[in-house]
Amino acid sequence: MLMNPNRDTQLCMSLSARPGNFGLRFHNHLYEQLGLNFYYKAFSSRDLPGAVSGIRALGIRGCGVSMPFKEACIELVDELDDSARAIASINTIVNTDGHLKAYNTDYIAVEQLLKKHAVPQDSTFALRGSGGMAKAVASALRDGGYANGLIVARNEATGRALAQSLGYEWQAEMGAARPQMLINVTPIGMTGGAEADELAFEDEAIEAADTLFDVVAIPAETPLIVRGRATGKRVITGLEVIAIQALEQFVLYTGVRPTAEQFQAAVAFARQ
Amino acid sequence: MLMNPNRDTQLCMSLSARPGNFGLRFHNHLYEQLGLNFYYKAFSSRDLPGAVSGIRALGIRGCGVSMPFKEACIELVDELDDSARAIASINTIVNTDGHLKAYNTDYIAVEQLLKKHAVPQDSTFALRGSGGMAKAVASALRDGGYANGLIVARNEATGRALAQSLGYEWQAEMGAARPQMLINVTPIGMTGGAEADELAFEDEAIEAADTLFDVVAIPAETPLIVRGRATGKRVITGLEVIAIQALEQFVLYTGVRPTAEQFQAAVAFARQ
Repeated sequence: MLMNPNRDTQLCMSLSARPGNFGLRFHNHLYEQLGLNFYYKAFSSRDLPGAVSGIRALGIRGCGVSMPFKEACIELVDELDDSARAIASINTIVNTDGHLKAYNTDYIAVEQLLKKHAVPQDSTFALRGSGGMAKAVASALRDGGYANGLIVARNEATGRALAQSLGYEWQAEMGAARPQMLINVTPIGMTGGAEADELAFEDEAIEAADTLFDVVAIPAETPLIVRGRATGKRVITGLEVIAIQALEQFVLYTGVRPTAEQFQAAVAFARQ
Repeated sequence: MLMNPNRDTQLCMSLSARPGNFGLRFHNHLYEQLGLNFYYKAFSSRDLPGAVSGIRALGIRGCGVSMPFKEACIELVDELDDSARAIASINTIVNTDGHLKAYNTDYIAVEQLLKKHAVPQDSTFALRGSGGMAKAVASALRDGGYANGLIVARNEATGRALAQSLGYEWQAEMGAARPQMLINVTPIGMTGGAEADELAFEDEAIEAADTLFDVVAIPAETPLIVRGRATGKRVITGLEVIAIQALEQFVLYTGVRPTAEQFQAAVAFARQ
């Protein structure tokens, strides 16, 4: 039994239009391994204000926020962490005695991964995408000192706005650009999507790059990542992003940081 | 592990000022025994409207409602079952696709127990108390055909109102009344209370009665019940009430009725 539930059990949750299983398996597995009296529940909702009222009224300790709530949620919390303020997009709410503080652990995860994989700060990069997650990734790059960037997005309004807000260039297509790092923050390569088998960048750009970073997590081995591994490039996967962002949520909710082994075991369990 | 939680797991909950462990242990034990993908969580709250908003927005399947919310909750639901309408006091909310229907399973439990213990319908009775639970018990008696009743309550306003609404007499004290059934619906005899060691009725009245019914559930063996067993009277305990009302909640939430053996095992587990 997942701990012996009692009246002191704390609830954490996720809120999204279509919940997955990764987060709830990751968190519940770690609660069990670490003997923490918590339970994690995935909720879907069409009523964000009602859901946040419930989080407050019921004393739910933490909430992971996914599409389509990451931006609308900002008006409903009491405080924004630095990781969320600049991006104006959140993915995590921590409830401390009714005070709701919001974080963006996607931003935190990208920041950590750039360091962990030792991507040189003077790398040029192109990032494809201009949605909420693109904002988090591009902000982490900018704050990490990656000054020379190109936002590639067919949507000129959001692409140009994102680029300008961070001091990057914008182009609708890659054109002749051949940066050192290519980052996909679109659904291209995602299982079940219309472009599941496609590469997010042209062959010539991939050949010229030394780092391929794909935010798509399902599958972990997207066409872009497969190509990167086959050609010996540095690769950063979407699985690493969702795992680290979940880990940082776990730490925020429980105050406990699992060991590297416990973390890896939880990721392996959550992927099953 | 309590089922393998996944995104389809349904949540049921309780809402009270000070949650106990009985309900969550009872429900979670039966979920596990019956292989139902549910989880039960006890919540405390000071914000009833916010909590009910959360139940709706998050699609929480069922909610047990305890003190002090049983009456205030009525304004917040969409429909009242017969068991709740006449009493204007609820203890159960069932959420079906956002439609909240409220029940009073305390009423249902008392109705069942009078039949199970074969208390003759022409028994005279005195019921001590005039709060929300007294309303549920007295209504079940009235609807069960027990026409000859006395409400004993020091609070004249609530006592007289309860008696009049159901066609019973009211007295501040027992006086010379010697009814066949004595029913305690006050905290007298409750563990931790100011009158934990006291009997809810005078010795003479107890001696004259043939049925002793105590709604206090902690301990199961209250002074009144102990006295009843020692003298060979018919006894009905508060543990029976909370167990049956929890069972009826379980059936309403899940659509599944456990066997008598499963029910008894869950009660034994929940009491530990």
